[in-house]
Amino acid sequence: MPELRQDPLSGRWVIIATGRAKRPEAFAPAARPAPSPEHDATCCFCPGQEATTPPEVLAYRAPGAAPDSPGWQVRVVPNKFAAFDGATDRQPAMLQGLEQRRPAFGAAEVIVGTPRHDRTLALASDAELAQMIHAHQERYRELAARPGVAYVMLFRNQGAWAGASQRHPHSQIMALPVVPAAVATELDRAAAHHGMHGSCLMCQVIARERAHGARVLADDGRFVLFTPYASRTPFELMIAPIGHQADLGHLSPEDEAGLGRQLGLAMRMLDRALGDPPHNFYLHAAPCGADDAGRWSESYHWHLSILPRLTTPAAFELGSGILINITVPEAAAAFLREYRTEPV
Amino acid sequence: MPELRQDPLSGRWVIIATGRAKRPEAFAPAARPAPSPEHDATCCFCPGQEATTPPEVLAYRAPGAAPDSPGWQVRVVPNKFAAFDGATDRQPAMLQGLEQRRPAFGAAEVIVGTPRHDRTLALASDAELAQMIHAHQERYRELAARPGVAYVMLFRNQGAWAGASQRHPHSQIMALPVVPAAVATELDRAAAHHGMHGSCLMCQVIARERAHGARVLADDGRFVLFTPYASRTPFELMIAPIGHQADLGHLSPEDEAGLGRQLGLAMRMLDRALGDPPHNFYLHAAPCGADDAGRWSESYHWHLSILPRLTTPAAFELGSGILINITVPEAAAAFLREYRTEPV
Repeated sequence: MPELRQDPLSGRWVIIATGRAKRPEAFAPAARPAPSPEHDATCCFCPGQEATTPPEVLAYRAPGAAPDSPGWQVRVVPNKFAAFDGATDRQPAMLQGLEQRRPAFGAAEVIVGTPRHDRTLALASDAELAQMIHAHQERYRELAARPGVAYVMLFRNQGAWAGASQRHPHSQIMALPVVPAAVATELDRAAAHHGMHGSCLMCQVIARERAHGARVLADDGRFVLFTPYASRTPFELMIAPIGHQADLGHLSPEDEAGLGRQLGLAMRMLDRALGDPPHNFYLHAAPCGADDAGRWSESYHWHLSILPRLTTPAAFELGSGILINITVPEAAAAFLREYRTEPV
Repeated sequence: MPELRQDPLSGRWVIIATGRAKRPEAFAPAARPAPSPEHDATCCFCPGQEATTPPEVLAYRAPGAAPDSPGWQVRVVPNKFAAFDGATDRQPAMLQGLEQRRPAFGAAEVIVGTPRHDRTLALASDAELAQMIHAHQERYRELAARPGVAYVMLFRNQGAWAGASQRHPHSQIMALPVVPAAVATELDRAAAHHGMHGSCLMCQVIARERAHGARVLADDGRFVLFTPYASRTPFELMIAPIGHQADLGHLSPEDEAGLGRQLGLAMRMLDRALGDPPHNFYLHAAPCGADDAGRWSESYHWHLSILPRLTTPAAFELGSGILINITVPEAAAAFLREYRTEPV
């Protein structure tokens, strides 16, 4: 019988549709997609085409090397096609009766974490991953400290089916004037839990996952990787720090290395099991606005969600807000574990 | 400059990304998809294959003709691949600490509104559309009256990209044990508006759209068809009755004909302008459960949302709950109006 499961963090209900369930191996692709070339002379993120992007705001390159030229390992540039304008003033909402609008100011940047066009996260070394995480954290801290910024959102798309417009591996970071609704819902639930139980909801979820074990894919004592209880999609994954951390601003070098390792592990399992599937990931952390400083430090706990895009939400999901997952999360975890070749 | 717009019904914020805006004509397809054949002997919804579905629960056919055999104009069958089981008892949620679950019981049916495999809504006659709407209402009333049913959801997917697993045109109807979150949010906002202003929020939205006019595509005095102020996708459309109606249980024959006409008009505009795009539609109406009888009759007002699937939500949208629409709704309306050839 199908069952409805509720995600403890968001309150979201998901139908785990066992009646129409696909066995996890049914998602294994007939053939892997053709690999990208190592370098693409038409790609705006490949070395040699630095002039096609706005000037870099951060780069890791040999000391003394010229900016906006080849030789970098990580490069961060403003997003030319930003949905948000770069204006820095917080402007009041313009109220016009039923038509509420406000300028969409903020900042949007692209983090190109590798000069290689073909270097997906699944192929990156642990050292490359740690360096990439460090760049994410550097930009996160800088944007979070800007006046008027309420929230900094980190996310990544890979594959056209997952909405990526550029094939070269990259992440994105956006500074927003508002706390997004999806985060606000989790903040409210976490605060309510903390008020009632005096503990962090995510800490409890993590303790439950580690004790239960059926959905855990890796646990190194610092980070845990698992398929969430109410996974929205087949093979949804979550990575969270085991020790309580509200936001991304306080990662130690060991945290950066540990997060990089778990991210690489997750991506290699998806890559081997499902043939480099299109996917999205995003990070949910406590807001950074001055109004919110410290407000969520005890109740909220950051986590990274990875969503392979193997199915298509249709009218039922769009109209109801209830998602249908055709794979049981425990079975997805068991399947992926078969593709974990590294010790953890 | 891009702007954030808030949908008055749901409270959802949408970024209207004028900076990366596509002109509406950029969505016009290079070539139309190949048309379907009139009949497909491998299709479970085509006449002659009635035995491949569960027995029909409703059909419009010549008097005296045998059930589950050819000759029907509309045929409704249980969904073989239902996400919801057919059990009729309302069972309590099973509480297990962080793992909240409940059986996903309910009913799911497929409304095959035409015997012709190639007869999309854009190609259907007004008489066929009215008959199809009548069948939808008949099933809606029957399912809404069942014990334990809190909500009846009507929806439709066309095209593989929009999640349709069958090419033969069809709608779906589901009876749910809970009011879906997306509807509950709108109910709360509508009730708050009614409490504060003594009027229906949707009635006000409709009055504003009709007076403003820039987003209206058709208005026959009974139904209005428009691109919503905070459209989520390029060419999102909404159809609503101008007179206040809380749910779908009270359509007169004139309403059925009028709704069918506007739906056909909407689909023909999309078809001509955008080459039969993949799309979803769903209907939001007041809940039908015994606990809710009459509770929403003054504050809630049903409406049909049509969402062409021309863009792909990516990690930013999934993680933030904020959608990005790369076409301005007023421009989308102006573009579609050029493809309206019928008098309205």
